[in-house]
Amino acid sequence: MSNKQKRFFLPENEIPTHWYNIQADMKNKPMPPLNPATRQSLKPEDLYPIFSKEAARQELNQTDTWIEIPEPVREMYKYYRSTPLVRAYGLEKALNTPAHIYFKNESVSPIGSHKLNSALAQAYYCKQEGVTNVTTETGAGQWGAALSYAARVFGLEAAVYQVKISYEQKPYRRSIMQTFGAQVTASPSMSTRAGKDILTQTPNHQGSLGTAISEAIELARTTPNCKYTLGSVMSHVTLHQTVIGLEAEKQMEMAGEYPDVVIGCFGGGSNFGGICFPFMRHTILEGRQTRYVAAEPASCPKLTRGQFTYDYADEAGYTPLLPMFTLGHNFAPANIHAGGLRYHGAGVIVSQLLKDHLMEAVDIKQLESFDAGVLFAKAEGIIPAPESCHAIAAAIQEARKCIDTGEEKVILFNLSGHGLIDMSAYDQYLSGNLTNYELSDEVIQKNIDEIKKIP
Amino acid sequence: MSNKQKRFFLPENEIPTHWYNIQADMKNKPMPPLNPATRQSLKPEDLYPIFSKEAARQELNQTDTWIEIPEPVREMYKYYRSTPLVRAYGLEKALNTPAHIYFKNESVSPIGSHKLNSALAQAYYCKQEGVTNVTTETGAGQWGAALSYAARVFGLEAAVYQVKISYEQKPYRRSIMQTFGAQVTASPSMSTRAGKDILTQTPNHQGSLGTAISEAIELARTTPNCKYTLGSVMSHVTLHQTVIGLEAEKQMEMAGEYPDVVIGCFGGGSNFGGICFPFMRHTILEGRQTRYVAAEPASCPKLTRGQFTYDYADEAGYTPLLPMFTLGHNFAPANIHAGGLRYHGAGVIVSQLLKDHLMEAVDIKQLESFDAGVLFAKAEGIIPAPESCHAIAAAIQEARKCIDTGEEKVILFNLSGHGLIDMSAYDQYLSGNLTNYELSDEVIQKNIDEIKKIP
Repeated sequence: MSNKQKRFFLPENEIPTHWYNIQADMKNKPMPPLNPATRQSLKPEDLYPIFSKEAARQELNQTDTWIEIPEPVREMYKYYRSTPLVRAYGLEKALNTPAHIYFKNESVSPIGSHKLNSALAQAYYCKQEGVTNVTTETGAGQWGAALSYAARVFGLEAAVYQVKISYEQKPYRRSIMQTFGAQVTASPSMSTRAGKDILTQTPNHQGSLGTAISEAIELARTTPNCKYTLGSVMSHVTLHQTVIGLEAEKQMEMAGEYPDVVIGCFGGGSNFGGICFPFMRHTILEGRQTRYVAAEPASCPKLTRGQFTYDYADEAGYTPLLPMFTLGHNFAPANIHAGGLRYHGAGVIVSQLLKDHLMEAVDIKQLESFDAGVLFAKAEGIIPAPESCHAIAAAIQEARKCIDTGEEKVILFNLSGHGLIDMSAYDQYLSGNLTNYELSDEVIQKNIDEIKKIP
Repeated sequence: MSNKQKRFFLPENEIPTHWYNIQADMKNKPMPPLNPATRQSLKPEDLYPIFSKEAARQELNQTDTWIEIPEPVREMYKYYRSTPLVRAYGLEKALNTPAHIYFKNESVSPIGSHKLNSALAQAYYCKQEGVTNVTTETGAGQWGAALSYAARVFGLEAAVYQVKISYEQKPYRRSIMQTFGAQVTASPSMSTRAGKDILTQTPNHQGSLGTAISEAIELARTTPNCKYTLGSVMSHVTLHQTVIGLEAEKQMEMAGEYPDVVIGCFGGGSNFGGICFPFMRHTILEGRQTRYVAAEPASCPKLTRGQFTYDYADEAGYTPLLPMFTLGHNFAPANIHAGGLRYHGAGVIVSQLLKDHLMEAVDIKQLESFDAGVLFAKAEGIIPAPESCHAIAAAIQEARKCIDTGEEKVILFNLSGHGLIDMSAYDQYLSGNLTNYELSDEVIQKNIDEIKKIP
């Protein structure tokens, strides 16, 4: 144990007033999303039927480096931000590593994860524009819980499509959404055309984020005064999450250190981008040598085994075509417990950054992720979300390298959420019943070949 | 929404270095615990076979006002303390009350409740004294989770007896304890004489804290190098919890206010005493007019309907006789979801304070507690523990009085823990399947009459 400071907080008046828009600083800008019917580059107006106008504008904004956080959203941030930056002395000791490990603890947000950062923004913009109802998809339920609460804050009704496998695996998250007053439906459902099509073709479909997105978009399109909101993938969602990295930057300064490597788990990219982009700014503009590592599940490896191409963001093909690393929009991920990482594609910004070698990716098997999560829980007392376990596993890999080299590297990772609602997964792990999922090259190739069929 | 500061934190160097021992300041000291065999006043040595020596000494210390927090415990506190003091603007708005409502948010501790404050201290003292194994009881599992993690921190093995009804209602808490490496047994069990006696007499016994305490004490007594630890009731546990109120005192000063009423939910009294005693010091020494309200469940009403007398702290009668408000040590509380409040007696300090009218008690029915919890969740985004819902309900009662009187009273309550592991209770509530439990005077009298049979 040490006498050194363990947690670093910012006073309320130092909580960021602007989000960081990395698109403005990127030398190679992301390629434009395309209208699938016309193959024309998307304009913000094309997104107005689905998203709030402000979210649509932010999505395609490649010029403004700093975007102001609306005052009512900042006021709500103050209820849980800054989140603590924590020096993981317990984990360092457990590993016996010379590395300095820090984590940004987003699990202390009221709903238990970083997702609230964007939910509040998206709900606020909807409210401002006269929208009354919002809809969305959710995997493990972290995003759905965040949106349900944010909708409640700004007086909106929320309807959430939850991926069926998670709806069944994690009934408590459904209850949380319902406690906040949201309507929750297991997806695929019979309540949308997209859901019916999927269920008639594959009666026992366990759902995926891609499917749930299709259902939510369909509801938004067919309901007056209803907008769709998204928990990751999109550039404006990642923009909102940069509050994490902006805080972490100031907090690392308080700790008197600067990270050599920044790590986030990777589903669609918003938590990863949120912690990394403010640091990456210094790499892009000043050539600062920092590594950025995305930790994705080995069973859903779009970054390490996917292909960079135009693809749909959802199963049914309702969305624009996005230039991204993808496993194909019909890829059905294995039923890993990290529901929030079961998504076929990566956001357009991170896809471009990976293409340009500004970041790296590592794939983590399910068992390794829980090995890491339990080690972390015993060392730090916090049960991490299965998603976050992937970031911890990658951080542990880096810390172990330091044992070999003797280097005192500074490792920063984002603890995106707690796993208190995921204890059934830990039960399975502790009882030896958790497995890895192998994914053959053939399956990957088959799904990627499907992309070529897009007209 | 307001621009005023919402959360108040203390810098690490202002986290209390000493706990506050109210016994030293009380004009009427608590009456002594008695050895049931000899009816002699207990000396610390009489407790050495069960507790760590330091805990035993603290238990009976009526002279030292301030007791130093050991440095390794303080270092561990820094991982989660200070906990935030929060101005509940959302709740004030939802109630439309002129009252200023604050809550101390102990739910952000790594294990999700205030229980860690004492678990770390008790585990540390055991370690210091060469103990290798610790054992305890737990109701809802908050205390068991805290002790399991604290044992891990200080390198001890932990064995936890969890009240059977909670073991079954809240399997996730069991998993949390197991993740930290503890052995968990549903109580009453066949592994102890006390458990066997209860199960042969009442085959379908659902367990109670009193029963689980008997089992844990028996294990400690019959195992070399094993000590018993307790999550509430005892004076040394409440002592450790005063870190809550000591912080809150400084934080209220940061907020520029002083509470007119301080509220805690009430099981054995440690969370209540923890938030109240540091404020009560000013009432005792300076005559400061502040009200202290204990919120107990209507189905386990030792403060409002119990009797002040000597009684056992456990079901089997293994403990010393304690002078307390009690419903009788054989009282079997109804299966409310607030497992941590299902206990027949009140600690000796709070019992004396209630007798001396230095505090008040209010009983809350189960449905009212969840009405309050859901209102709070929607307003503040935090799902409260069923136990904490009782404190919220009492705070809402006070805030509603202010609507009538127009007074801007300052209300402070302790949010002892979150309810994320208790979502099945919220499910029941939301689906209309949750009930109140009526408790007749006859049942209470019958159990109180049993006390008289103690030789």
